[in-house]
Amino acid sequence: MRNIRMKIAYDGTRYNGFQTQPGGNTIQDTIEKAIETLTESRTIIIGSGRTDARVHAEGQVFNFHTESRISIERWALALNSRLPEDIRVVEHAVEVPPDFHSRFSAKRKTYRYSICTAKFHNVFRRNYEFHHPAPKLDADAMRAALEQLAGEHDFTSFTTNHSDDKSHVRTIYEAVLREEKERLELFLTGNGFLYNMVRIIAGTLIHVGQGKIASDAMGSILESRDRLLAGPTAVAHGLTLINVDYGENKA
Amino acid sequence: MRNIRMKIAYDGTRYNGFQTQPGGNTIQDTIEKAIETLTESRTIIIGSGRTDARVHAEGQVFNFHTESRISIERWALALNSRLPEDIRVVEHAVEVPPDFHSRFSAKRKTYRYSICTAKFHNVFRRNYEFHHPAPKLDADAMRAALEQLAGEHDFTSFTTNHSDDKSHVRTIYEAVLREEKERLELFLTGNGFLYNMVRIIAGTLIHVGQGKIASDAMGSILESRDRLLAGPTAVAHGLTLINVDYGENKA
Repeated sequence: MRNIRMKIAYDGTRYNGFQTQPGGNTIQDTIEKAIETLTESRTIIIGSGRTDARVHAEGQVFNFHTESRISIERWALALNSRLPEDIRVVEHAVEVPPDFHSRFSAKRKTYRYSICTAKFHNVFRRNYEFHHPAPKLDADAMRAALEQLAGEHDFTSFTTNHSDDKSHVRTIYEAVLREEKERLELFLTGNGFLYNMVRIIAGTLIHVGQGKIASDAMGSILESRDRLLAGPTAVAHGLTLINVDYGENKA
Repeated sequence: MRNIRMKIAYDGTRYNGFQTQPGGNTIQDTIEKAIETLTESRTIIIGSGRTDARVHAEGQVFNFHTESRISIERWALALNSRLPEDIRVVEHAVEVPPDFHSRFSAKRKTYRYSICTAKFHNVFRRNYEFHHPAPKLDADAMRAALEQLAGEHDFTSFTTNHSDDKSHVRTIYEAVLREEKERLELFLTGNGFLYNMVRIIAGTLIHVGQGKIASDAMGSILESRDRLLAGPTAVAHGLTLINVDYGENKA
């Protein structure tokens, strides 16, 4: 039995999220179906984590155990020829040790939240960024707020109530707000993220940028452990899972 | 009666092209419907030219005559609020002289044809670029061929047979092939383009890049006035109308 790991990108627009659910039409269902047509055997894949409906990925990772004898070099192209155009394997498959688990073995994850600040939204990126034409967001204030979120904290204020994680303590290693012409991009790298955590951080920063939340309030919002003090959950389609790091190629 | 000009961008993926046709579902139909709901009067718009099904625009231009008293400043936002998300007015409307005609008054047009050369296609750009992973295209040969197309020529070899233009002589002012990481972008600026001309030039350059057509053959292909000597018509979705120039803001 081999354990195979793959890296995929997907446009989440028309899917009900990554993880299998009763309503169907998920990324996981689609990939499992493609593997089944390829191997003629029902296979469950293990994702690095779920992503919500309309959330995208440039670098989601999954693994699966298989008896298939398809050579490791053939997997990427073979699966791509059976996947719809909005899901794509983006690197060659690798064989990993039997105990590798895409979720439990992950060391760091990076997400991007994209905000289009142009007066008129870009039709080619309409499904991949949140459009916020006015008022002008104060990027310096957002950056000052963001700095206070870096490090190890209890992020209870930044997750939805029905989160079932036992501990709400997570570490954010990197928190960067890039300002481009007519676009703001928030990059967060951490050892893990609670349910809706990136979207609530993004929504809170947008309120900071609008002047509705003071940029120095992050400390007290974290301490309060009260979801009601943070900003709204930013819309799903601005969010993209950029990378999952397993600590393998680090200096 | 005012004559109003507007600039729009659209994702052509789900439309049967720009121009009204019996099958419906065109960009023009959609815009005319939006204007009708706004002004309560049936209005015909004049585009700078048609674009085919699945062809996109960053800067298509149209004008229309209207009795509406809606102020010129309000038009862009008012129309955007009535258009689907894949069509967007991208600049404020301007009032133009009564004889301005988006097609006949156009001085120069610029098109881009995009080719993704990565091994695996980019899911976020899958509808906006042609995927050509292998063999590696010879960009230098393509550039050498492209240079021979600049200037005034009879482009009969580079249009489909059923083109009904009387003269096939056009001038290409600028012809550039930009090479980026895993992407080639062909930019053509000319005084006008025959039916399918940019796509046939792109398809011919791809054959040059593959070594199927010699890079110095362009002169003889032009001279032959024979469509069969040029390359295939490149797929529609790689093509985007970038700009229409009316010679107004030139030094």
